[in-house]
Amino acid sequence: MEEEADCPGGAANNTVVNLILLESGEVDGEGVSVLSGERARHMLKVLKVAPGHRVRVGLIDGPAGHADVERVEDGAVALRCSFDAEVPPLPGVDLLLALPRPKVMRRLWAQLAAVGVGQIILTNAERVERDYFDSHILTSEVYRPLLIEGLQQARDTRVPSVSVHRRFRVLIEDDLDRLSGGGLRIVADPGAETPVSTVAGGVTAARILLAIGPEGGWNAFERGLLEAHGFIAAGLGPRTLRTDTACVALLTLVHDAARRRRQERES
Amino acid sequence: MEEEADCPGGAANNTVVNLILLESGEVDGEGVSVLSGERARHMLKVLKVAPGHRVRVGLIDGPAGHADVERVEDGAVALRCSFDAEVPPLPGVDLLLALPRPKVMRRLWAQLAAVGVGQIILTNAERVERDYFDSHILTSEVYRPLLIEGLQQARDTRVPSVSVHRRFRVLIEDDLDRLSGGGLRIVADPGAETPVSTVAGGVTAARILLAIGPEGGWNAFERGLLEAHGFIAAGLGPRTLRTDTACVALLTLVHDAARRRRQERES
Repeated sequence: MEEEADCPGGAANNTVVNLILLESGEVDGEGVSVLSGERARHMLKVLKVAPGHRVRVGLIDGPAGHADVERVEDGAVALRCSFDAEVPPLPGVDLLLALPRPKVMRRLWAQLAAVGVGQIILTNAERVERDYFDSHILTSEVYRPLLIEGLQQARDTRVPSVSVHRRFRVLIEDDLDRLSGGGLRIVADPGAETPVSTVAGGVTAARILLAIGPEGGWNAFERGLLEAHGFIAAGLGPRTLRTDTACVALLTLVHDAARRRRQERES
Repeated sequence: MEEEADCPGGAANNTVVNLILLESGEVDGEGVSVLSGERARHMLKVLKVAPGHRVRVGLIDGPAGHADVERVEDGAVALRCSFDAEVPPLPGVDLLLALPRPKVMRRLWAQLAAVGVGQIILTNAERVERDYFDSHILTSEVYRPLLIEGLQQARDTRVPSVSVHRRFRVLIEDDLDRLSGGGLRIVADPGAETPVSTVAGGVTAARILLAIGPEGGWNAFERGLLEAHGFIAAGLGPRTLRTDTACVALLTLVHDAARRRRQERES
């Protein structure tokens, strides 16, 4: 597989762990978790922890918190965890993305989780190669660790939900309202004059669903179907960006517009 | 070198050529340019050009334009070029960046050029490893092709200028006004309440200089020196991003704020 051979280790070497995520089954009734493997190695080699040190932890899809290092033995680290009362909300933005090449998608998982997205809806389109859907990069065994890596970088605990749709029309006509209904819908369109930030900041919506097309764009049918299902076309400016760069840029703009709108309402 | 061994081919395989850039010496007095090598291969294999086809071209640091394919022979492509009268302006944002790891910096060059930056000012900081400065990734033979790759993706012709500064204090106190004086200065600060987009959109400035610190942040001295030299602290929100993701996110916000401000003035 090209994407594996090309970058062994993949994104795993590139992020910083700012919060150590634990599965709920890894913490006992007393709040004690004994970690070995990659997370222990990270605490010992990078954070250089010793008994008495405190680290940030979080429960996957649960609350964040902190942990005191109790023991270090044979490369394993025993933590006593204390978690917040509240679980952080899912990010308020969902992404509808025409599946990019496996190599690009591999790089995207951690970045999407870091920038913050509630749901990742991957779809076919005319300009998506069919065999992209056969890549192991779409199996949860591959993408879930990459999503968790991005969350550990961004200090979040909520794993985005992921769904893969080989039939664009069925997705938009039959499934999308159930997956992400009721919010503001934006389709990124290089030709649109109105900036994404203006559209995203112009209304108060519980959720925003952002659609990003393939390299080369949606075709006319796909664009028409999106618009018929409530998507507003909005632009990023004159520069054409690679899919992964565009995802980071557009998600950032949508988050920022929602944040500024919240601040305005509160002030 | 880790960054080379890890990803042979580097970013070169990941971008799309939306405009073919030519050095001025590659075009004769009649506007004819005969290309072989990578650009010819791209035109033949990806764009599948034949005589009579038209492609977008640009002169490096000159005007954009188009070219008609005149001949295809032995893997070489002869183009007859026609260039616009005007040279596009440099992007209105400069970047002051604490030098990241060579592997991250390698990935950043093309992305910075694609998102758009007039000048890249790389600096030392306490939390930058000294040996990062010895990497060949800081030689123009390595970074210039990567910058051009990003420009070809984004359809721009203007190569950002690059300077490398091993002494942070000398840079800020003695050199910065000459490199990037008179504009709005923003330092990205995870702790700042005011969003970057609010600061960037709040004033009309000919240029904006954006400072992004190392993983782990600027130290107190560095932050103080930046603020004493006019940098306003602004935030991106609660999520901690990897340097390359943060660069794309922050540059996008600054460009977008400037663009919305221009649109408001014009309407």
